[in-house]
Amino acid sequence: MAHIDLGFDEKQFPGILGPMRFRPETAKPLNELADVLLRGPSSLPPGERELIAAYVSGGNECDFCHASHSAFAAAQLDGGAPFVAEVCADPDAVAISPKLRALLRIAAAVRVDGRTVTSELVAAARDEGASDVEIHDTVLIAAAFCMFNRYVDGLGTVVPDDPVVYEITAQLIVEHGYGASLRG
Amino acid sequence: MAHIDLGFDEKQFPGILGPMRFRPETAKPLNELADVLLRGPSSLPPGERELIAAYVSGGNECDFCHASHSAFAAAQLDGGAPFVAEVCADPDAVAISPKLRALLRIAAAVRVDGRTVTSELVAAARDEGASDVEIHDTVLIAAAFCMFNRYVDGLGTVVPDDPVVYEITAQLIVEHGYGASLRG
Repeated sequence: MAHIDLGFDEKQFPGILGPMRFRPETAKPLNELADVLLRGPSSLPPGERELIAAYVSGGNECDFCHASHSAFAAAQLDGGAPFVAEVCADPDAVAISPKLRALLRIAAAVRVDGRTVTSELVAAARDEGASDVEIHDTVLIAAAFCMFNRYVDGLGTVVPDDPVVYEITAQLIVEHGYGASLRG
Repeated sequence: MAHIDLGFDEKQFPGILGPMRFRPETAKPLNELADVLLRGPSSLPPGERELIAAYVSGGNECDFCHASHSAFAAAQLDGGAPFVAEVCADPDAVAISPKLRALLRIAAAVRVDGRTVTSELVAAARDEGASDVEIHDTVLIAAAFCMFNRYVDGLGTVVPDDPVVYEITAQLIVEHGYGASLRG
């Protein structure tokens, strides 16, 4: 049960959907941030950006965010759910581009503590073709999920009874963006 | 030196001001989130909300955010900078309201890992008069600063040469809000 009284049946709005409905004033910029970072114009494909979000959420052991963004990544990447699960388990054990691997290493460092991002990690990403904007966005995606994960778990939100919710939400978000999750 | 080439003299835009200027698309929702959370309508005074932000940033040892939000809290609280420094060092050693102390304990738990927020911590805050919205906002402020801190440090941004910058920014933000920091 959530730590606060959301004012409605929390099972109907699991994970972040509950507090977002409870506090639309903060939900608005949070969804706008997710839309810009994960779905806005970028040289990084949306599926790869969702994969970074899923990977960080897995590291933080946030079940709702990890399952959600794994589904959103799977819906937009060749290889689908098995590929996403393999990358989240160990990016070094999967055939991914050297650039994505280098960016995931930066994301892993940000997750622990921003100060652990070294010049070497950044230079390695740049050597594999990552641009300054791609490095910036990777740092901010990883940082943002350290927020979203804490928001979801710090309020003790519930996970869906039926994991099909993640697939349904994935379709909604791929087609209509993060703002749509509020109107659902 | 910052990990990415911001395209301008980073000393002129220290800390988060550099990446915000570099990437205005993400700066917009980030500033809106800060405005709603720290300055929007709330039963928690803005100074106390800034104090939660300063306290979490101190725990994460993010020098720029800690100094900035300490200055913003000091500008809006009786006791000023010495009081803010004492609270950040040890909230249990200072005469603050039992409600604020209970909220700071929740914030400290969120900072480490959202899953460490217990029903007991939440019940203690409620016993001291904290509302559901105040508990929600405390969790989100603490979570958001786990993002801002990682963003600032993960990009290796610089701190100001002259700490008077924090005082000047404090006046700007108290008078005009967070959006103003972009137009500076």
